[in-house]
Amino acid sequence: MQKSKKAAESLTVMTNIVLPNETNSLRNLFGGELLSKMDRCASISAARHCERRVVTASVNHVSFNHPIPEAGIVVLESKVTRAFSTSMEIYVDVWLDDPINQRKIHTNEGIYTFVAVDEFNKPVPIPALEPETEEEKKRFDAALRRKELSLILSGRMKATDSVELKKLFAGEI
Amino acid sequence: MQKSKKAAESLTVMTNIVLPNETNSLRNLFGGELLSKMDRCASISAARHCERRVVTASVNHVSFNHPIPEAGIVVLESKVTRAFSTSMEIYVDVWLDDPINQRKIHTNEGIYTFVAVDEFNKPVPIPALEPETEEEKKRFDAALRRKELSLILSGRMKATDSVELKKLFAGEI
Amino acid sequence: MQKSKKAAESLTVMTNIVLPNETNSLRNLFGGELLSKMDRCASISAARHCERRVVTASVNHVSFNHPIPEAGIVVLESKVTRAFSTSMEIYVDVWLDDPINQRKIHTNEGIYTFVAVDEFNKPVPIPALEPETEEEKKRFDAALRRKELSLILSGRMKATDSVELKKLFAGEI
Amino acid sequence: MQKSKKAAESLTVMTNIVLPNETNSLRNLFGGELLSKMDRCASISAARHCERRVVTASVNHVSFNHPIPEAGIVVLESKVTRAFSTSMEIYVDVWLDDPINQRKIHTNEGIYTFVAVDEFNKPVPIPALEPETEEEKKRFDAALRRKELSLILSGRMKATDSVELKKLFAGEI
Amino acid sequence: MQKSKKAAESLTVMTNIVLPNETNSLRNLFGGELLSKMDRCASISAARHCERRVVTASVNHVSFNHPIPEAGIVVLESKVTRAFSTSMEIYVDVWLDDPINQRKIHTNEGIYTFVAVDEFNKPVPIPALEPETEEEKKRFDAALRRKELSLILSGRMKATDSVELKKLFAGEI
Amino acid sequence: MQKSKKAAESLTVMTNIVLPNETNSLRNLFGGELLSKMDRCASISAARHCERRVVTASVNHVSFNHPIPEAGIVVLESKVTRAFSTSMEIYVDVWLDDPINQRKIHTNEGIYTFVAVDEFNKPVPIPALEPETEEEKKRFDAALRRKELSLILSGRMKATDSVELKKLFAGEI
Repeated sequence: MQKSKKAAESLTVMTNIVLPNETNSLRNLFGGELLSKMDRCASISAARHCERRVVTASVNHVSFNHPIPEAGIVVLESKVTRAFSTSMEIYVDVWLDDPINQRKIHTNEGIYTFVAVDEFNKPVPIPALEPETEEEKKRFDAALRRKELSLILSGRMKATDSVELKKLFAGEI
Repeated sequence: MQKSKKAAESLTVMTNIVLPNETNSLRNLFGGELLSKMDRCASISAARHCERRVVTASVNHVSFNHPIPEAGIVVLESKVTRAFSTSMEIYVDVWLDDPINQRKIHTNEGIYTFVAVDEFNKPVPIPALEPETEEEKKRFDAALRRKELSLILSGRMKATDSVELKKLFAGEI
Repeated sequence: MQKSKKAAESLTVMTNIVLPNETNSLRNLFGGELLSKMDRCASISAARHCERRVVTASVNHVSFNHPIPEAGIVVLESKVTRAFSTSMEIYVDVWLDDPINQRKIHTNEGIYTFVAVDEFNKPVPIPALEPETEEEKKRFDAALRRKELSLILSGRMKATDSVELKKLFAGEI
Repeated sequence: MQKSKKAAESLTVMTNIVLPNETNSLRNLFGGELLSKMDRCASISAARHCERRVVTASVNHVSFNHPIPEAGIVVLESKVTRAFSTSMEIYVDVWLDDPINQRKIHTNEGIYTFVAVDEFNKPVPIPALEPETEEEKKRFDAALRRKELSLILSGRMKATDSVELKKLFAGEI
Repeated sequence: MQKSKKAAESLTVMTNIVLPNETNSLRNLFGGELLSKMDRCASISAARHCERRVVTASVNHVSFNHPIPEAGIVVLESKVTRAFSTSMEIYVDVWLDDPINQRKIHTNEGIYTFVAVDEFNKPVPIPALEPETEEEKKRFDAALRRKELSLILSGRMKATDSVELKKLFAGEI
Repeated sequence: MQKSKKAAESLTVMTNIVLPNETNSLRNLFGGELLSKMDRCASISAARHCERRVVTASVNHVSFNHPIPEAGIVVLESKVTRAFSTSMEIYVDVWLDDPINQRKIHTNEGIYTFVAVDEFNKPVPIPALEPETEEEKKRFDAALRRKELSLILSGRMKATDSVELKKLFAGEI
């Protein structure tokens, strides 16, 4: 297996124009269409990190803060935030870039989990992730709490067995 | 505002065939495409519950348990699980229905939050939800814990201020 | 070959939202797009009835009674109406469901013929259909007349050899 | 209103390549997709005949005789066959054109009815149709029988009131 | 290899309606979508000329003279203009056909180069092209100058080695 | 009007995965689909440079050097190369990025011309472009020759009136 890789090595930028066929009746980018773009962007980051075929394991959270209008320029940026044994968490940030009015609005963020698989579709080990910037380090730390949470929500871990989350609810962090 | 409504009143069934243009290179339904279908199905349940225009507020969790192959029959079923003041949680269950081999596989489940809005895009109050079946009641109870969690993760509530979740991590429920 | 099956066993419900990319310049669901959805819905009913791969043999009639506007909720419901040796007739009813104004409008009905095929694309025998409700029985009876008509129109039966249709035009039924 | 027009004036040719996203799991052009193309082709013939906005009134019959494979060249040709007061019947012939093997196969034919409408979506009178070739004349005559049939099937005419069809079933034509 | 073929034998007509999902925010046909249609139309002309599988080698020039509005009828007509050893130049003319206002506007013209390939994707010789009409002859002559130009621009020919173009810039033709 | 802007300010990166519905029968990205993506990428660079609504004026040249297979990661990068009074030339480079085999292949380059327009669709003046890197400077110089060429090919300039191109064919540059 490969040595560890930096978060920046998985950076993927997906710029596009919102086409009429991607909008809802309010002429904003359809929620479902955005989820689809985020999934594709995240999957490229995942592939770049582990240099393997990857599949989506779960969507952990996606927020919708601001609508993205038709003909708007939408920019997705994704990076791996933390690698576990065979899975990795990916963060996708979405901006509406409006060069005509010189504004750039942070419209969404999403957190996805991908798994690296071999040619028989079996999970394979992946390189560790090295965060470098402050934001990468913050997201790296939070990724462990989110993983525990996901295990609890899916019934694969008991809440009282968690380490990080128990501290959070006890007011220790 | 309307009186409360039953969970069954928002049931939405979306059956379809997986077309080649919705598949990835393994010839399975693309993760992003499924997220988009789930979002649309959930939005119909939301509209049926509150009889209002609705917008996606967040995707709380979507699991990917089993691939759905090209030409497979995919069945999505969504219902409102709990209504809060202006938002509601929707559960979407996804099955692969294979009449030729007489199998029906539960492939995914997803949890979405929608908000009802007026013509100026402002949130409006919605009817309460009455769960009836055992499963509806279980999901209704869990919805409150998920809401607290979402508020904590987005920084709008302190972990130590939660009611339901604190009990969970303290081992009280 | 299988024993007979009930009409209800082939019921297929396909709910969806009319997206901007499915509309014509009047912002209503495009006729061709609806025909495509009806074909897919009918093909699932056909597959559920005969538990086989199926192909469209003909579209016998589709009426367009009421436009379906963009962002409308469109509900398709299809059931097998009658099974012949290797072919079956499917009825597809289409509604515009408008929860905001609490209306449900019957916009279209379509009649399709499908054939069950084996892995070499050759027609195979299919189970008989048992109608149960009044409407199922009425459509079951009419299906035979429509089949005779189709054979006549395609030149595979002489009008004077028909049994049911001759009676109809002679005023006997 | 305009004077009568020739059938040839409404001829519309729609050549295209079957793309992967238009195929079913057998890698042939999806039935629904073909219905959609035929509807669009027919609507152009209708607009060319009556020089008005047009809407689909019904699909009267479409046969599926031969599959059209992915990457095949599909050629649709449509012409108005007969004009009634505010509606017109359109015939669409479909061929698979295979220049590599120098074959051209007639795969489908479809019969559609369109109505010309004004800006308030109300039906408006249209020019009469003048058939010229032998085939145009044959289809022009048959169009009247098909119109009677459609009125009978939709319950707007009694079978015993028909003129042309009664003759057909009595063996007179 | 085949004997020469006439330009008219490769004529391909692709009529269609501009759908909402093909338009930009000004509700005109998107430039990229038109480029895609032109490429498909040209590839059919290429296949008809050489009776072989073909691939796009380059787009040499496409002009955008007039917007094509949503719901407009767009007509593409393509013909091979000249065949070289294994490649051929195709001209695509685009019109907006407006039967309601009885106008036909020439909106675009495009020049594409295609190569005929065998089953191993290797270029194969193709039939010569025989121009017949005045316009076909004029485009046939200009095709040689365009080919030289393309070789110069891609660095595969020195400007001073060109025959036709040197004459042009020296004012000899 | 704005002061001049740097080439780097218009850099647009559009990363995506080649989906099955974008491929031809050889399972490579369809030529027309790539042209469409390049047009959209270029239009974003144009909008970023001039901070105005822009429309495609012409495609000057696009080469197809290497096929891009289904499921491949395709990266488009575009930058304005030179601004004229109301139009600008954009270069789009396309790569196939293959992290699994750690290769990055330059598959295409395309040259587009866009025009900035006001709300009445009339051309408006745009900022000058400042090239900085060696490649930016080389493309800036060549852009003038390409513009002259385009004017000559469209009959708006006589070959003998060109300045840069005459030198090229006379062997002076």
